[in-house]
Order: sequence, then structure tokens, then C-alpha cells
Amino acid sequence: MTLSEPNGMSRIPVAVLGATGAVGQTFIRLLADHPWFTVAEVAASERSAGKTYRDAVQWLEGDLPADVARLTVRVCDPGEIQARVVFSALDSSVAGDIEAAFAQSGAMVLSNAKNFRMAADVPLVIPEVNAAHLALLSVQRAARGWPTGGGIVTNANCAATVAAMALAPLHEAFGVRRVFVVTLQAVSGAGYPGVPSLDALGNVIPYIADEEPKLERELNKMLGRFDGRAITPAPFAVSAQVNRVAVEHGHLTCLAVELTQAAPMDEIAGALQSWSGDPVACGLPSSPARPLAVTTQPDRPQSRRDVGAGRGMTVTVGRLRPDPLFHVKYVALGHNTIRGAAGGSILNAEVLVRQGVIRA
Amino acid sequence: MTLSEPNGMSRIPVAVLGATGAVGQTFIRLLADHPWFTVAEVAASERSAGKTYRDAVQWLEGDLPADVARLTVRVCDPGEIQARVVFSALDSSVAGDIEAAFAQSGAMVLSNAKNFRMAADVPLVIPEVNAAHLALLSVQRAARGWPTGGGIVTNANCAATVAAMALAPLHEAFGVRRVFVVTLQAVSGAGYPGVPSLDALGNVIPYIADEEPKLERELNKMLGRFDGRAITPAPFAVSAQVNRVAVEHGHLTCLAVELTQAAPMDEIAGALQSWSGDPVACGLPSSPARPLAVTTQPDRPQSRRDVGAGRGMTVTVGRLRPDPLFHVKYVALGHNTIRGAAGGSILNAEVLVRQGVIRA
Amino acid sequence: MTLSEPNGMSRIPVAVLGATGAVGQTFIRLLADHPWFTVAEVAASERSAGKTYRDAVQWLEGDLPADVARLTVRVCDPGEIQARVVFSALDSSVAGDIEAAFAQSGAMVLSNAKNFRMAADVPLVIPEVNAAHLALLSVQRAARGWPTGGGIVTNANCAATVAAMALAPLHEAFGVRRVFVVTLQAVSGAGYPGVPSLDALGNVIPYIADEEPKLERELNKMLGRFDGRAITPAPFAVSAQVNRVAVEHGHLTCLAVELTQAAPMDEIAGALQSWSGDPVACGLPSSPARPLAVTTQPDRPQSRRDVGAGRGMTVTVGRLRPDPLFHVKYVALGHNTIRGAAGGSILNAEVLVRQGVIRA
Amino acid sequence: MTLSEPNGMSRIPVAVLGATGAVGQTFIRLLADHPWFTVAEVAASERSAGKTYRDAVQWLEGDLPADVARLTVRVCDPGEIQARVVFSALDSSVAGDIEAAFAQSGAMVLSNAKNFRMAADVPLVIPEVNAAHLALLSVQRAARGWPTGGGIVTNANCAATVAAMALAPLHEAFGVRRVFVVTLQAVSGAGYPGVPSLDALGNVIPYIADEEPKLERELNKMLGRFDGRAITPAPFAVSAQVNRVAVEHGHLTCLAVELTQAAPMDEIAGALQSWSGDPVACGLPSSPARPLAVTTQPDRPQSRRDVGAGRGMTVTVGRLRPDPLFHVKYVALGHNTIRGAAGGSILNAEVLVRQGVIRA
Repeated sequence: MTLSEPNGMSRIPVAVLGATGAVGQTFIRLLADHPWFTVAEVAASERSAGKTYRDAVQWLEGDLPADVARLTVRVCDPGEIQARVVFSALDSSVAGDIEAAFAQSGAMVLSNAKNFRMAADVPLVIPEVNAAHLALLSVQRAARGWPTGGGIVTNANCAATVAAMALAPLHEAFGVRRVFVVTLQAVSGAGYPGVPSLDALGNVIPYIADEEPKLERELNKMLGRFDGRAITPAPFAVSAQVNRVAVEHGHLTCLAVELTQAAPMDEIAGALQSWSGDPVACGLPSSPARPLAVTTQPDRPQSRRDVGAGRGMTVTVGRLRPDPLFHVKYVALGHNTIRGAAGGSILNAEVLVRQGVIRA
Repeated sequence: MTLSEPNGMSRIPVAVLGATGAVGQTFIRLLADHPWFTVAEVAASERSAGKTYRDAVQWLEGDLPADVARLTVRVCDPGEIQARVVFSALDSSVAGDIEAAFAQSGAMVLSNAKNFRMAADVPLVIPEVNAAHLALLSVQRAARGWPTGGGIVTNANCAATVAAMALAPLHEAFGVRRVFVVTLQAVSGAGYPGVPSLDALGNVIPYIADEEPKLERELNKMLGRFDGRAITPAPFAVSAQVNRVAVEHGHLTCLAVELTQAAPMDEIAGALQSWSGDPVACGLPSSPARPLAVTTQPDRPQSRRDVGAGRGMTVTVGRLRPDPLFHVKYVALGHNTIRGAAGGSILNAEVLVRQGVIRA
Repeated sequence: MTLSEPNGMSRIPVAVLGATGAVGQTFIRLLADHPWFTVAEVAASERSAGKTYRDAVQWLEGDLPADVARLTVRVCDPGEIQARVVFSALDSSVAGDIEAAFAQSGAMVLSNAKNFRMAADVPLVIPEVNAAHLALLSVQRAARGWPTGGGIVTNANCAATVAAMALAPLHEAFGVRRVFVVTLQAVSGAGYPGVPSLDALGNVIPYIADEEPKLERELNKMLGRFDGRAITPAPFAVSAQVNRVAVEHGHLTCLAVELTQAAPMDEIAGALQSWSGDPVACGLPSSPARPLAVTTQPDRPQSRRDVGAGRGMTVTVGRLRPDPLFHVKYVALGHNTIRGAAGGSILNAEVLVRQGVIRA
Repeated sequence: MTLSEPNGMSRIPVAVLGATGAVGQTFIRLLADHPWFTVAEVAASERSAGKTYRDAVQWLEGDLPADVARLTVRVCDPGEIQARVVFSALDSSVAGDIEAAFAQSGAMVLSNAKNFRMAADVPLVIPEVNAAHLALLSVQRAARGWPTGGGIVTNANCAATVAAMALAPLHEAFGVRRVFVVTLQAVSGAGYPGVPSLDALGNVIPYIADEEPKLERELNKMLGRFDGRAITPAPFAVSAQVNRVAVEHGHLTCLAVELTQAAPMDEIAGALQSWSGDPVACGLPSSPARPLAVTTQPDRPQSRRDVGAGRGMTVTVGRLRPDPLFHVKYVALGHNTIRGAAGGSILNAEVLVRQGVIRA
């Protein structure tokens, strides 16, 4: 392989913006013991700035890594941060200006926020699905006058990520024409404190603010074609209904798909089973053994039991069967805070290292 | 109104078959203090027969009505039961033979079991939707040689009931051509002990055995046309995906509907809001004020908060909006063990009393 | 009975302070259709003031009563409120000054807040247990220079209420010397949004801020003796451990009790079974048929199944048995937002009406 | 160290009895990739015998290890099993005879069943707490006439295990005189299907059949003294109240302890913090870094968040504080199916390997 990967080198220092929130914590948990990256700086709101991370954070899951606990929290200002690789877990109310400022300062921003996702010159990437879109970074840099090294790469909404991975093999093989998607989403998708327990216990809420439009447009962009200059969105139509359920982690999506080109069920199953995505995303530190796992157990995937597949980076697909209205229906489950958020961002960064865009 | 209704009369004695199970208990709870019916007999399996009901049952919710607690449990044999009105909460493994035997003996059987639902001469009824199908009873009696008074009336699968009530107004006004339905169903739909807690807690199971086929065929029969001799199923196609969620009571269904005849959203909303169903089902002891309630709150209906509407007999519809693929999508919620099971059966019986088919 | 009760009179106008919060909403739900009281005014923070109640509130459970929905929300200032009976669901951060101002202005304040509970001249009342303490109102009025009609009556912490009702019969009959109490408390005890779902789902939190001290001191005051001038706290010692569990409503408490005077188990059981509390609390609109229900089912009371006993006003006691260390142990369950909050306040007000302290 | 431990040797073949149940599955999951043991045989009821394990089991969590999936299930008869080390996850209805038969045949039985726990010549062992009791095996062998290599070692009830580990440091340092213990136990403690979801969702059940007596007697045996011939139970008294809560894994126990010899809080805290248990249990494959972790976070341990400490082998203690009635109260949490069941058995076996009682 001609790509440059870190070898015996010291780890690349990275910063986490919005480090005290739920997604920020997931970044820090996943980056602990990462072979290529080390969390050198953490930044959050003015309220937290100046405190040690340990004092600033209400740590939610597992053990707080000792090295990060000792860091002093910075404000989210490029002048305060040395790292040239920045993971953004910022709230969308502030992410726009801050992420642009970091890119302008020459940092590569890997963002979970929605602000730049639909910008024409910003890649929205799941690397197994559309790593090629990362080449949009040079278009972006030229268009915005950002210096070498600076740029913004986004990852998708957590539910859209699961659906995109489940649709990609069929879109590649047969074309997707229309998709119904109904989601059953975990409470961790809303962050912390997030969903009140009185709303979640023994309940379903058939609504998440602004979630359905994200699903209905991000899928087209991710599955769209990049011609070296711009992305042409995939021309299929999506109808989404989202639901919040009393599950901790894991977004389950029910998909019904009309293909552009009809195919027998065994070919459809084969397309899903054999799919391993863009090779540039394989074998990286955060890559799962298989980006997609297909189960034939009649009652799987299940949210709690399958969410951890591939350490949260594998999407599990099941209940594949013909659809009475469209061609095929099935169920896909993915980990919303790992594959659908922090883990996806980190995998994007790993691809950029492999491509030499991020250097030690 | 020319229909005969009980007036100052003594209450009609009824029997409950399968009285110790979850649905059987719901019958007994709903029939306590019923103005027209009184539970005079209870029957269950050989294992329970001979015990008092109090000793035979593991009572699940609220207080066990004292009058019923004292009854001796009978076996499910027409020779052991006096009542001419029989509510069946039998398991489908035994319901077929037993219900036929009771009908043969001249009893009117109101059944929750699936066995006879799709039989051409057996009405499958939600009275607001298709009370006219009850006239099939005379066809049934003639065809099967059952005596006057004998017959079987079924009510639908619990999830199909919710969907049917939500679709009926649109089918009546515009015609339904295609429907996607994804359900989020409560654990009480599986009876007791039913779903193990290790399967339910923090989990979604995207499968319920034999449930999707029921949804895909019962809707067509209920919304079909009865010409005096037979039912012509409604000619629309249904695609169903069912899910079990950690909710106690209440089946939530996500619907996307293609109409035969397109209509503007305000007319669609109007059709749902103004629908009150067949007048024969109005004003009965179990009738809710409105069979369908339409909410405009963006995040409703919710399973736990809306399941009790109309004492469990109202289906609540919300999130009505245009669908990017079909014409309209929305969410409907109903109580699975009341409207979708025992309460629905009792309402069917009340209509039969009003029609003079059941007499004191 | 020589007590004056409303008869054919028009209902007494009352105000609810903190009306938009979870406890405030429970007041409004319980006061809808109350035979003696009518909610004439609602008050909340400046942020809500001026809006209609419907617009100001995020209504959590059931239907918002139409009469109250139309009211304009006032600020919590005696100059803005006409009603002479005021139910306070205020947060403790502001309840102290506001409640005193209302009492000073001649209103009778029935408070859920903790601020005045332990004040020597303020009654802390569960009427079946210690209605006699209400006579402390005249001491209070004299001490504080409040006008006729003005005063503050508090009800206890929700968990303390359940424990107090379960202990009262034993304290009255045998004396209580030492009590261990471990609680399993519902999330609704923390209000709304309250406990984040990520903290509640599949979890136990063995801590609720400031809850154990309340339990350890309020029990003594409520079970203390009033001599016409002051309350002498009951001299027993309490050790409390509280836990938050994934239950919507209902605080379950595990009690182990050392009696002052040992007694055989049948006498202890008899004391609990026969207890009906101070007669002044019987037969009021909010009185349950029995303040205490004793179950002998081995696995009851259960939070979800028994919380609604007596429309939330009955405490259910079970698992009564000898204790290897003290004399007796048992389990008690009560509804935290009804008996332990709004319902308890309303019952206190009803007693004051019966006593002629509150007049139409 | 003079103890013999496997070194470069091939792994010891072991059998799992009751292999298809929930505890049996946990054995198989924990023994996958074990450095000293390999699951060579699985046995279950006649119904499963003859099938492959894959076909016989309804696998509940994670991936079924491929090597075990292929094994043919045997009946639980010593004549059918070669392994000389046998882990028993049998139901107590059959465990007595079968375990004795295996011991009689010369197999070392590590049992989770309750049948032999209280037998005077059978060690009931948590190795950090009372590994010395394992020497009772030679008494047992002599008394029962079992051959060399044959014997039964039991581990305790899951809730008793958590309590015993939390009490051991205080009993060793100061003596325990009286203990109140109230548990909040996970549903997995009841196996699969176990607790129905209608019993668990939004509910607490303050009862588990036969659980309180186990807690009240097993603690004394485990913390008792072994003089080379017999165990003298620790002479303290225990009062237990158990509760089932809607938690998947993790038994939380609330303890209030009266010491034989009073001690200041810092010494009590020190005893807990510094305790590492019998050195013979340290550094084994299943040993956690620390058998007991003490947290000072005010709201910890929490069931879901701390159950995985030390891969399920560490008990976490928190909320340590003086008790108003006894000396000290605190909360302890442990993993019921790992430390409290299969993991505890495996650790017992590892100690026996180290002691040379089990040989390759």
C-alpha cells in the first residue's frame, strides 16, 4: 500500500471541542489508547474553561482516562489550541463559527455538528460508503481560502449513518429509487441530560425535532456521486418517521426499498453480505472486521444485544425479505454514539491519515 | 332508534373462556359493573377447572372483582356452560374446536382468537369500521348449520385494529391504495408471562411471530365491502414491519398511505377529525366519546400518555403530514388489550344487543 | 358532627403557586371537578406570567382541564392573587419568601415545599396521622403576627409520607424506638424534566440529594406529640437509605422497626389492619376508603400495580414478618405525587374546611 | 510462589452442566479464551441431549463461541462426561443427585446450585474472603467416601456474594455484630425467561422466593472460621429484605452494620479501601485488579454504570457514612451473573489449580 500510515512514530496530538458533553465524552473514551492519536487538549464553554477536565465534566460511562482528567479545559478558540486535528462535538448553536475559525487557522476539523453537513463543498462522510468525497476538501479549501491543512469533514446524523450503511450495498449494486425508513432511536442520541426519564419510561415518542429532514436529505448526499468538483446527490426519494424508545444506545431502522433495477432476493442478500465498503476504510484502528453484518436469526438485530457489534462500529442487518409494495424490506441497527457519532469521526480522521491529508 | 336495548332489564349472563389468561382477565375487569352483561361463568383449562377463580388465577392488574373471584372455574365445554353469550380469550391452539362447539350449541361467541378471523363466513369486526359485516352471521349460520343464536364474531389482531381505525376514514373518503405500516408494540400484547424482561429491558425486538401476515391480510377484510352474501376484501396492498418495545400497554403504528384519489392535506385532516364511524357503534356502554382523536401536538400520540384515551377505546392519531413518497403519513396509537382485544369484543357484543341478535 | 362542611354552597376559589411544574400540574389535575374547591388562579415565574396557562405549561399527563387552560398565569405575589386558599408547589429556592408573604396577606398556604416543614410553629401534617397538629396554626399566627385566615400548613417529603403512614399505627399502639428505612423511589419524585433517562434506564441510583435527612427528621415531627403549644418530636431514631429506580410513580419503602414495647406478630398485624387514622380525615372528598391497606400476597405491594390504590391516596403495606434484629419488618408503598404531594395538601385543606378554619 | 500453576501446559478440559440455561451460557462465555481451561463437554437435560450446542441453546448475549457451538450436548451423567473439572449451572431441583454422582466419580464439581451450600462439609467460597475453607474438601472426601480428585465446592447466592465481599473487610478488622441488608436485584438473577416483562417494567417486586433466608445464613458460613475440621459460622445476625428491580445485570445492596468493636469512620474507610483479600486469590486469570473498589462519588455505585467494574469481578462500594442506629452504612454493587455466579465458580477453580488440588 502506497499510503502513509503512522509507523513507530509518536502519536498525533488532537483536541476535542465540546469535550464535556455526551459526544465529547465518547470521543475521549474512544481515543484513550488510540494507536495514532492522543488527546492533548480539551475545550468547552467559558463556564468550564480553566478547570481541570475532571472537575468540569460529569463523566457518564466507565472510567475517566487519567491523562485527560488532568488537562485544563480551554475555550473553543483557535488561539488557545495547538493541535492541528480537532474533533468537534460542539452544539450546533455554536459549531458554525467555531469550526470555521479552526479551519481558517489551518486545523482539520472532524465534526459531528449539523452546521456544515449540507454545504456543497463540505464532505459528509462514512468512509466505507463515500471516502471519495473527502477529495472535496481541496475544493473547499480553494473556495473558502483556507490554508493547507485546514478544512472541515462532517459525519452524518446518527440515524442517517445507520440507514446509509444499510442502503449503500443496494444502491451500488442495483440503484435505490425510493426508501421508507422508520427509526426506533436510543435516548443517548439526545445527549445528556437529554430525554427526561418521565418521557422515556414505558413510552414511545414518535418525534425528534429536526431529525426527519436530516434523514431525508443526508442520505442523498452521502450516496451521491463526486465528479472531482462537486457532489450530485443520489436521486432517490426518502420518507422518514422517527421514534424515540426506551433504549440506552442503538438506533434501529426499518427500511423498505424500491430499487432502480429489480433483483432476486438472493442477489440482494448477496450484495449485503459481501459488501465491505471502500478498501481505504479497511484495517484502520477503528475499522470493524466487517462494516455490515447480516444476521439470519428471525428476531435480530436487537438494540441491546447487537449494538456492540464490532465494538460499536458494525451495523447489523436482519429480517431481509421481499416487500409487498417495494422490492425489499429489512432492519438495520447501529451504535448511535460510536458509529453514528464519535467513532465515525475518528474513522474519518484515520482515513485522512492514511491518505496523507493529516500528517504527524 | 328502532333497535332494542336493555332497559331496566336484568343483566345478560355471559361466560368468559380462557378466563385465567391475560386477555381473559381484561374481559373480567372490563365486564365488572357492565350495565348490560354480568360474568356468570368462567372457563379455563383442565388444570384450573374445579378451583375457584380466585385460586386459579394469578391476577395481574387492579382488584379482582369479588363476584367473579367466587365462581368455580369450568372446563371449556358447552355442556358445562349455561350462558348464551361467550367471550373467548382462548389460545389459538385450542380455540378452533371449542369456539365451533359453542356456536354449534347455540351460543354467540365473541372471539379474540385468530382461528376464524379469515374464514369467509365469519365477521371480523370493529363496529365503527364495519358493523355491517355482522350481517354475515346469517350466512355463517346457514353455511354451518348452526342453530339460531349460535355464531362466531371475531375481532382483529390488536395492531391491525389500531391501523384499521386509523385507515378507515381515509379509505371511506378517498380510497386507500397502498400502506406501509411499522408498529411499536407493547409487551402486554404477548400475554403473561409473555415477553421475558431480559428481552424487553432497554431493547427493541424487530419481530413478533406471525404478526406481520395478520396485519397484511386482516386490514383488507375489515375494510372490505359486504354485499349481503360475502365480503370483497379492500383491494389495497399492505407492507408491515412489527417491533416489540419496552412499553406496558399501547401499540403505536407509523402509517404511510397512498390514496386512490389524491386529496389536499386539509381534506385528509378533515376526514380523520370528523370521522365517528358507524352510528350503530355510538352511545353504547363501551363506546368512547370519539373512536378517533386527532392531536396536533407535534410529539403526540405517545404510548404511555395517550393509551388511556376514551378509557382505552379511543385511537389517537397525530403527526399528520404529507408523505414524500405516498400521499400522507401519520402515527396512530391504541390500547392493545382494551380496544385491540377484550374491549373490542365487548363493543361487538353491545352492537349485537342493540341489533337484537343477542337478547336478554 | 359539629364541623361545618360546604353544603350546596358555591365552591371555594383557590390558587396554585408554581402551577406549571410537575407538582403544580398534579394539583390542577386533582382539583378538576373537586366538589369544594375550584382553581380560580394560577401563578408561576415571571417567564410564564401573562400567558394563558395552556401556553405556559408543558402538560404531562392526561387532559388539561379546559377551565384552567384559559386562565392567565400570574406572578407569585399576594397583590396579584385574590384567592384566600393557596396551594404551593413552589421550588424551595423561592418558596420561603413567597409563602410567608401570602400568609402575611391573610391567605392559608398549603405547601409542598420543604422550607417551613421543620419550623417549630408550622404544622407538618398527614391528617390521618396528626391532624391535631393543625391547631399549631394559632400559635403560628400569634408568633408571626399574621392576620386571621393567614397561615402555612406543610405536608411532608413524599417518601417520609409513605413511611409515616406505615409507622403511625405501630407508634400509636406500641411505640417505635428505632427504624431502618430503605426506599426505592419513582422518577416523578424529581419533577420534570427531573431524572435524565440515561440515569434511570436499567439503573439504580443509590442517592437523592438532601432526601435522607428529610426522612430522618420529618418522621419524628409528624409522629410527635402536640400539647397545645408545641410539638415534642417522637423520640425514635431513624436511619434512611434512599434509592432512585426506574419507576414512574410510587415510592416503595422497606421498613425494619424496633418497638418500645414488644408485641406478638398478630397484634402488630392487627394494629396495621385496623388503623383508620384520625376520624377528622375520614369521609372527605380526597379521603380514600382506607388510608392503609394491608396485603398478604407474598409479592405485594408492587410499585406499578399498587400505586393507584385509593386513587393514589392509600398506602399499601405488605410482607409483614418478624425481624431477626428488631421486632418487625415490612414494605409500604404510596403514590409520591398524589398522597406524597398534591393529594396530601388537598386533604389537609379539606380538613381545615371541616374544622371551619377555611371558610367559603 | 510455591504453588503449582499451569505453565506452557495444554489447557485443562472442563465440562459445563446445565449448559443451555442462563448461568450455563455465562460459564461458556467466560471460559472462551480462558488461559487454563477449555470447555470440552457440555451437558443438559434429556431434551437437549444429542443436539449440537448451537441447536440446543437460545443464546442470549454476544457471540456463541464457535468451538462450543459444535459440541454435542450430553446428558448430566458421569458416565457420559470425561472431564475431571465440572462447572455446575444446574437447577436446584436436580443438582443434588447429579453433583454428588460426579463427585463420587472423582470429578471436582464447582457448583452454583444451592443444594450443598449449607452442608457442613462443603466449602461455600469466595476466594478473597474464605479460600481457607477449601481445605474442607479433604474432610468432605473422607466423610463421604469420595475418591481423590472428587469433591464439591459451592459459591454463594449472588446477592450474598456481594454482601459478603462488602462485609469481609469490616468483619476481619472490627467484627460484625448485626447487619441490615436490603437488596435491589437485577432480573438476570432469575435466569431466562425468568422475570416476565410485565412484572419488571416500571415496577419493583419486593420479594424473591427463598432469597432472604439464603442471605441470612450464607453470610455467616462464609465469614465463619475454619479450624481444620469444621466451620464455625460467624456469630452475627442478619436481616434481609430483597427487591427485584428493572435492571438487567447488577445486584445493589444497602448495608447497615453494627460492629463488634466500634471504630472511627476513617478506620472503617481504610479497612475497605486497603482490603485485597486472601493473596491466594490474587493474580489469577479471573482475578480483578481489586476485589473491592471504594468510590467517593456521592451518587455511586450505580447498577448499570458500575456493574462492569473489573470485568464484572469487582464489587464497588460507596456512600460510606456513619449510621444513626448502628455504626456504619454503605452501598455495594456486584455483577450477579459474573462475580455472583459463573465468574465466582471459575475463580474458585483457579485457586484449586494454584493449590494443586486440580491438576492438568
